[in-house]
Amino acid sequence: MSSQAEIVLKPIGVVKTAAIDDEVKDKTRTSQIIINSELAEALEGIAGFSHLLVLFWLHEISDEQRKTWKVHPRGRRDLPLLGVFATRTMLRPNPLGLTMVELVKAEGNVLTVRGLDAFDGTPVIDIKPFDSWDTAKDARVPTWWTKLESEKAQS
Amino acid sequence: MSSQAEIVLKPIGVVKTAAIDDEVKDKTRTSQIIINSELAEALEGIAGFSHLLVLFWLHEISDEQRKTWKVHPRGRRDLPLLGVFATRTMLRPNPLGLTMVELVKAEGNVLTVRGLDAFDGTPVIDIKPFDSWDTAKDARVPTWWTKLESEKAQS
Repeated sequence: MSSQAEIVLKPIGVVKTAAIDDEVKDKTRTSQIIINSELAEALEGIAGFSHLLVLFWLHEISDEQRKTWKVHPRGRRDLPLLGVFATRTMLRPNPLGLTMVELVKAEGNVLTVRGLDAFDGTPVIDIKPFDSWDTAKDARVPTWWTKLESEKAQS
Repeated sequence: MSSQAEIVLKPIGVVKTAAIDDEVKDKTRTSQIIINSELAEALEGIAGFSHLLVLFWLHEISDEQRKTWKVHPRGRRDLPLLGVFATRTMLRPNPLGLTMVELVKAEGNVLTVRGLDAFDGTPVIDIKPFDSWDTAKDARVPTWWTKLESEKAQS
């Protein structure tokens, strides 16, 4: 297969949340992931993990927005203009969201999770168990990133 | 958009490595990610991060293999039969790999990274900077997982 070939994914489920707008960023909120019922058995054993990595499709990003190569993080012109791969912007060639969440409950084809910053109706693409090899101790991040994080902590 | 609609991705680059077979699991090895040249500027600022999350397409998984709902982890029949979403198996409805890597060097459209367990020629889908909010302290994992991890550490 050429590295340029198209890749076709199908949603495995959908996000259900009462949160709107910026409320989805509230890490204490819970939301639900409704897995397609024919995939329910693919969840067996998931309750053994306290945390999951959720991959979702940012379905509101347009084809035009996918052609963005540079952004000011969070639209802030006081911060440097950066390549999209150096940020977590939604404007990416392949607009996939990735969030680590806490698994609160797994029941049938429904997962209740805490900390998923995805809107109601967002298609879910994959769910992976989280383990310590997904982490790095003392990861280094740039100054602009630290600045945004400290502002967020104070707000 | 219906949550069942198809999603089309295009590779942003490709993995280049001399590692073959199980050598790709060697976390001390470096490999390269060759980003499509027209996307080179989307990497600007990436060198500010020590670690990245790399999403790649497991292009050798067949359409038939994507219909696997349950597996024994690493094919081991002494371990429980589990849903694919409770494991990191490549056999998933949407066969995407996700690995945290160390960024060794960023030069032009080429990233040199350490710890990427992807074969030569693997299409890369997205690259995201890694930060501490991608981690959980004291994440709980099941017994079968700990068993496999401790065996790996001894090998």
